[in-house]
Amino acid sequence: MTERSWWGWGRTDAALDDDACRELAATRVRPFLPLSGTLLPVPAVPPLPAPRIRPPARVVAATDDVSRAGHAYGKAYRDVVRALHGDVDHPPDAVLYPAGEEDIERTYGWAAANGVAVVPYGGGSSVVGGVEYRGGGPWVSLDLSRLAAVSEVDSVNLAVRVQGGVYGPALEDALRPHSLTLRHFPQSFEYSTVGGWLATRAGGHYATGYTHIDDHVAALRVLTPAGVSESLRVPASGAGPSPDRLFLGSEGILGVITEAWLRVRRRPAYTAATAVRFESLTAGVAATRTVAQSGLLPSNCRLLDPVEAALQAGVPDGGARLLLGFEGADAPVDAALARAVEWCRDAGGTPVAAPERWRRGFLRAPYLRDALVRLGLVVETVETACTWDRFEALHAAVCDAVAPALVTCRFTHVYPDGPAPYFTVLTTGGLSTWDGLKAAASDAIVHSGGTITHHHAVGRDHRPWYDRQRPGPFATALRAVKSTVDPHGVLNPGVLI
Amino acid sequence: MTERSWWGWGRTDAALDDDACRELAATRVRPFLPLSGTLLPVPAVPPLPAPRIRPPARVVAATDDVSRAGHAYGKAYRDVVRALHGDVDHPPDAVLYPAGEEDIERTYGWAAANGVAVVPYGGGSSVVGGVEYRGGGPWVSLDLSRLAAVSEVDSVNLAVRVQGGVYGPALEDALRPHSLTLRHFPQSFEYSTVGGWLATRAGGHYATGYTHIDDHVAALRVLTPAGVSESLRVPASGAGPSPDRLFLGSEGILGVITEAWLRVRRRPAYTAATAVRFESLTAGVAATRTVAQSGLLPSNCRLLDPVEAALQAGVPDGGARLLLGFEGADAPVDAALARAVEWCRDAGGTPVAAPERWRRGFLRAPYLRDALVRLGLVVETVETACTWDRFEALHAAVCDAVAPALVTCRFTHVYPDGPAPYFTVLTTGGLSTWDGLKAAASDAIVHSGGTITHHHAVGRDHRPWYDRQRPGPFATALRAVKSTVDPHGVLNPGVLI
Repeated sequence: MTERSWWGWGRTDAALDDDACRELAATRVRPFLPLSGTLLPVPAVPPLPAPRIRPPARVVAATDDVSRAGHAYGKAYRDVVRALHGDVDHPPDAVLYPAGEEDIERTYGWAAANGVAVVPYGGGSSVVGGVEYRGGGPWVSLDLSRLAAVSEVDSVNLAVRVQGGVYGPALEDALRPHSLTLRHFPQSFEYSTVGGWLATRAGGHYATGYTHIDDHVAALRVLTPAGVSESLRVPASGAGPSPDRLFLGSEGILGVITEAWLRVRRRPAYTAATAVRFESLTAGVAATRTVAQSGLLPSNCRLLDPVEAALQAGVPDGGARLLLGFEGADAPVDAALARAVEWCRDAGGTPVAAPERWRRGFLRAPYLRDALVRLGLVVETVETACTWDRFEALHAAVCDAVAPALVTCRFTHVYPDGPAPYFTVLTTGGLSTWDGLKAAASDAIVHSGGTITHHHAVGRDHRPWYDRQRPGPFATALRAVKSTVDPHGVLNPGVLI
Repeated sequence: MTERSWWGWGRTDAALDDDACRELAATRVRPFLPLSGTLLPVPAVPPLPAPRIRPPARVVAATDDVSRAGHAYGKAYRDVVRALHGDVDHPPDAVLYPAGEEDIERTYGWAAANGVAVVPYGGGSSVVGGVEYRGGGPWVSLDLSRLAAVSEVDSVNLAVRVQGGVYGPALEDALRPHSLTLRHFPQSFEYSTVGGWLATRAGGHYATGYTHIDDHVAALRVLTPAGVSESLRVPASGAGPSPDRLFLGSEGILGVITEAWLRVRRRPAYTAATAVRFESLTAGVAATRTVAQSGLLPSNCRLLDPVEAALQAGVPDGGARLLLGFEGADAPVDAALARAVEWCRDAGGTPVAAPERWRRGFLRAPYLRDALVRLGLVVETVETACTWDRFEALHAAVCDAVAPALVTCRFTHVYPDGPAPYFTVLTTGGLSTWDGLKAAASDAIVHSGGTITHHHAVGRDHRPWYDRQRPGPFATALRAVKSTVDPHGVLNPGVLI
């Protein structure tokens, strides 16, 4: 953890320094938003309250201030801004680093006996309050980074057996010598783990088709306080409700996903990509729907609205951009791209060069966000999915709800029945501004028929809206499951139920 | 129900008559198996025990012998052979025909108050004992065929809102004027319902990709004894564990699926198909794995072993056959077929004409099965899915387990990580022969790492093996859910838990 930022994204040496922050302000923010000119300094770890408990015996634990502060929050705007202001008033009493399932079992037993909450921690990239604790009692952060083995790469069946604490780059490093890849690249890729992806139903690289991590799962091993749940590794099964689907999205309240069999694929040998310009977002949406319903399955099909195109992709010509890409391991994909482009032309689009800045910036974006917060901006991302017929009204409702903030919108994923719109909201202000924006945007989404989250998970921040959207008997059922597999309620209290 | 066979498959006027049975025996059975020469007659409904209960008030009910006998069993071998011998000793005390959710609620209340078991009934095509009751007490068959509305066809989002009792052909009839199709054609298509497909996680038309009915679901409305669970209709969501996935595969133990939003697609305008001959099953498996892992997603990719090719497809040349087909709504698919054929050639295959008999025979097969049972044969189908590396040993184990019965094998579906093998087992004998075959084949499958069912569901016949394969904490969790949503335990007792 020494090189990891305790308060912001990723590595300390990759963050924007003061000069870079000021350049960002001058070149990319001031044209759009007023700025006070002050730059919040990179914070030192504030003095923390003393730990109230001693960690369990025989489990590696850290109780130093840097470790505890670094595990106090996820990486949402509200997390970063609190840390920047030195507000770390309820950190974990200890950070535990289990070496394996025995240590996790020990932790469960100890937590139940001592009334301690256990919050599983993968890469800590949650933007929904998934890894903090909002109760008043003692708690520990269960950092799973030592479950770091890529245990088996199976080239015959195109699958990999991997432990839950493996980070994205480590998994791809293990697959590369076999010419295989999971091709699951959430924006958090470098600082999130397989177990975290599974527990939160992460959205992945592909803009179409099988893209949620759910679709790559062949089997799961989950350590619940009531024992190990290990599903059969088969390509498909029709035997009762899927055990895996109960744990996918369970956000650490039912158990820790210690291992998974994931389906991988051969590395793409052929790619083809372009961008298409549309005069308006509406025209772009129509073309995107055609492509999404065609069965072509592009790997990239990201529509940027004119503001997103200007701000994030550096093409401020007032038009929307559809970024189109295809990948294939076995044969060229140019014909597929040509067909998609033809439909876009029919819908009034003009093929243009793919904007380089957008592609390079994807994994850098969280560092930029931190810089913007230091500059005194509120930066929030709000994402959802809705049917095509509801998108226009949903888009208008979100923009209205957060006005006069600057809003950009892109589609991160598209399905035959609708897009997954992703809004970035920028304004000046502080934590109370964010509170209001978040609530207004979430209300607008739910009111417009979108899901409260397509791939950021529920955590603690989306709870009120999740509760409104979840079917009543399913809520009851989930509570019944929880009380069965975690009878003492030690795991991630406050999340989901 | 007047035209439906009470004892066998489908419509009485579509069944093989005595002459056709004898011709089948002479031309297609005697070359492979000895036959006694006797032909069991088409049975009359035997005298049934009198109903022990009176149906609930205000729900349409039938208590006549034909209705009750026709709802006593599904359509497994053991069901047909019992009916042929007049063994219908525990029929439902009544058949209920709810007009809507109110009637189902009335039924739940009445059943709880009177200690009556309620067994949901879609098309009655279960081959795993899913629609009978093996307890000693009174029970009713809840026939959902009056929930028959295709409520909304949505061409903008490519989706359909449909009630659970809609039969396959009725759904396609409603979609055809919109040039849409669900393209879900299980072998039971004509005599199974949407609700039944969903409750049993039916396997569909496509040999690759999204093929289980699970993958077509956008939202479900389920009436549980504890109330209605209705999920949000969105293209995708990452909000907690999927509510739909808990009900998919629940086989009527948690509630009745009264309505669903399903994703549909445009009707294919382009098709391309061929067959490829291989000298051996092993050579065919290698080629099929290449195609399944290519990302090409053929609609048909069914490998028939030499015996299946001879018996079911009428090509007795000692070779295996791979049936390959592609479909597209927007563009020709010949290039994809050409690529798949090229790989098959590389693996030693020879393109040949597609066997006509196999294609025509698919929906007729259950009628043939009934005829074979009348001829005194035991006919069982056993299906599973396993990883590629395990297939050869699994195939050998199943053949050994049922020896000296005649066994044929085909792949109904293929995935990047493995095939779904489907075995047809033929021998002379009776119910006790079947008991032994079923147990031996199921043991062999489980021992070889295959799932006890890829798409036939668990029902009552697969229970012992399902119990062995299901993760312990998931079993506990499912029991907890059951006791919450069906506190009086009225729904389909004996299934799954």
